[in-house]
Amino acid sequence: MLNRPDVAVVGAGPVGLAIAWRCAQRGLRVVVHDPAPGSGASHVAAGMLAPVAEAYFGEHELTGLLTASAARWPAFAAELTAAAGVDVGYRTEGTLMVGLTADDLAEARRLWAYQQGIGLPVTPLRPTALRDREPALAPRVRGGALAETDHQVDPRRLVPALRTAAERAGATLVPAAVRSLSDVDAAVTVVAAGCGAAALTGLPVRPVKGQVVRLHAPGGGAPGFRHVIRGYADGEHVYLVPRADGEVVVGATVEERSDTDVSAGAVLRLLRAAVDLLPELAEYDLVETLAGRRPGTPDNAPILGPLPGRPDVVAATGHHRHGIVLTPVTADLIAELVVTGAADPLLAPFTPARFPPPVAGVPPAAGLRDPQQRPGQPAPGSGATRAAGSGPVVGATPATGAVPVAGAMRASGGEPGVMAADGRSGPLSTEEEHTWN
Amino acid sequence: MLNRPDVAVVGAGPVGLAIAWRCAQRGLRVVVHDPAPGSGASHVAAGMLAPVAEAYFGEHELTGLLTASAARWPAFAAELTAAAGVDVGYRTEGTLMVGLTADDLAEARRLWAYQQGIGLPVTPLRPTALRDREPALAPRVRGGALAETDHQVDPRRLVPALRTAAERAGATLVPAAVRSLSDVDAAVTVVAAGCGAAALTGLPVRPVKGQVVRLHAPGGGAPGFRHVIRGYADGEHVYLVPRADGEVVVGATVEERSDTDVSAGAVLRLLRAAVDLLPELAEYDLVETLAGRRPGTPDNAPILGPLPGRPDVVAATGHHRHGIVLTPVTADLIAELVVTGAADPLLAPFTPARFPPPVAGVPPAAGLRDPQQRPGQPAPGSGATRAAGSGPVVGATPATGAVPVAGAMRASGGEPGVMAADGRSGPLSTEEEHTWN
Repeated sequence: MLNRPDVAVVGAGPVGLAIAWRCAQRGLRVVVHDPAPGSGASHVAAGMLAPVAEAYFGEHELTGLLTASAARWPAFAAELTAAAGVDVGYRTEGTLMVGLTADDLAEARRLWAYQQGIGLPVTPLRPTALRDREPALAPRVRGGALAETDHQVDPRRLVPALRTAAERAGATLVPAAVRSLSDVDAAVTVVAAGCGAAALTGLPVRPVKGQVVRLHAPGGGAPGFRHVIRGYADGEHVYLVPRADGEVVVGATVEERSDTDVSAGAVLRLLRAAVDLLPELAEYDLVETLAGRRPGTPDNAPILGPLPGRPDVVAATGHHRHGIVLTPVTADLIAELVVTGAADPLLAPFTPARFPPPVAGVPPAAGLRDPQQRPGQPAPGSGATRAAGSGPVVGATPATGAVPVAGAMRASGGEPGVMAADGRSGPLSTEEEHTWN
Repeated sequence: MLNRPDVAVVGAGPVGLAIAWRCAQRGLRVVVHDPAPGSGASHVAAGMLAPVAEAYFGEHELTGLLTASAARWPAFAAELTAAAGVDVGYRTEGTLMVGLTADDLAEARRLWAYQQGIGLPVTPLRPTALRDREPALAPRVRGGALAETDHQVDPRRLVPALRTAAERAGATLVPAAVRSLSDVDAAVTVVAAGCGAAALTGLPVRPVKGQVVRLHAPGGGAPGFRHVIRGYADGEHVYLVPRADGEVVVGATVEERSDTDVSAGAVLRLLRAAVDLLPELAEYDLVETLAGRRPGTPDNAPILGPLPGRPDVVAATGHHRHGIVLTPVTADLIAELVVTGAADPLLAPFTPARFPPPVAGVPPAAGLRDPQQRPGQPAPGSGATRAAGSGPVVGATPATGAVPVAGAMRASGGEPGVMAADGRSGPLSTEEEHTWN
């Protein structure tokens, strides 16, 4: 087909648009499919770039990727601002982590100790130093720490900027939904569809509901605080993200639900914690209450790389709470993968192949064990070490063939089958195709 | 002018539309002016018909009018439902008044004792009886009382029903704003413009901001409680109004402000009190946050009757928190006044003449004393006993003459000057005209 795209990106959120931008910059013909760009999780997201504050026990590999991506943000923001000609609200005042009560502070200090222990820059602050930085904090706030390198960006500015940059680099936006990968005609399809990736690929991406409230400083001024504030307030975790235009994002719940209803209880908890930490927020206008669906995964880490047996289909989804901070590194590494066929070692822990494939006819679910797994046999793909294409899959069925494999990676000069996420390559047999589609 | 209307009503809220309906029913040619019918205070109002629960110390005359109007509601609702062919959400389950803490209950009991003392039907309930009526009440709720005759209606159903009824009776709606009474050409002009009455008439009507939150029972069901619940919760006064369609209105703040911004603090206080009283509300969807402006007056009572010196201009405004409950009696009495020229004695305490007229060039303000009043001289019109047209007014200036006086009350067969709100009549001299316009 004449002018068949090199790359089709499904999903025009920050991740999809940034991948499209990077691919277009490298000379590929790129099409992005999305009926409503930027209407997914990014529309709700606060835009914290917080690898330090978001470094949790047991997520070491994710923390590494977050840190790597946050380190790319300054240059990424500068390049994007120049390319799109708009301010994306990138701010570097840093993040204050605070505890309201003694119990809150004790809980926070456990996490800060962990974060310091893995070498992250967390600086405990005496109460006077805390108030010198943010005089608007409630007198009740017992203590805090500074994560100076945790920054922020405005996702609602980011998406239009990325779209402009991608289009200026030559990418084309098609404002239509992709219901099936067989609808897409491109050498490589990148699935950056957030929660929508589950239906398209069978990957174990599930919606994790998050509710936020948006306030605005009264009278049109800027908020009375500069840092992102992440607080523990009577056991409630809340963040407060100030924008130069007066907006304050208060978030966010983390709920194992797929609806997008805003609940009275969530708004109550968010506002109570926010006002407890920063009393002046009571006088702010409440301008928006909103719920979104984060693309969660069984291990809270993103899914980055080609589907096993489908080197022409590359996943870039499952970013969960971290889609904004992970945008630069995702875009860089996925574009590199698409162009060269070589997977950066950073991608290895995030391969789609770490999850067991779904069984035909069984809807994908978080942490689903393969029902055809034999007793005593380890679950295929369990852990993050299983390599793509490492053998026939129990219970796998042949792909429908609707997605062309031949010709994949044409633009990159690579061979079909070279895209195993661990960097290994090898021919793929049809037996290794399965129902990741 | 051919087809000059008998009555022009300025304002298509419940009061204005009900007056238009009643006047049209009695054969008058009626025009109603409003660019956005039902977009004022009634759009925010909860629709409680609560003369008992709203009977406060020192408002005896207002309580009498509230009671009289509430007594008309059953027939009014039935007639309106028949005339308009729609359900207006009139419900008769009664109102529970509850106190969350011992302090709350003590405060509530003082008011209940007052209400009982003036003969209103308030029935204290034992905690078991309270929970038998509403099992969803929080176990913490210390006590309550029943106001069985305090009912509710849905203002957002009421307004379209009244509009239909008025139009079916022959009234015409003109969807345009009235900036000055001189824009109106009718024998009698009824100013039912809520807060807008101040600019049109100079009457001391001021906006009293009220914020409400609208919830919805999850899953499309009805709320888990039947009564209107009015509670004192840790010093916060809140009401919870359940609708058959699943809606619950949580209100309301009372703020001496004129903006319509929704504040984080108000939503927090309303939701906290609501969830403290009825924990299941935390699971309800938050579907709307909204602020409105009640037309308040210096004595919290409405302003009903002809402007002094302007028998062709009849005020029906200043209903403050009581516009919905007062709609039937206001409509009946104002229509009677317009048609017959005779003021029902019920109207006497609510005459516009009870307030001192504003001085030319001085904007009206709540409780403004006449700056030209001599030391030692009682303020003219102070109290509710001063009769309209009772003598020349200090500082008054002649009316501009833009609003025609001659011909007023033509349709009613009355004479100019017969409309003193206390029922007395007499000729009006031009000296008695002033700046109520």
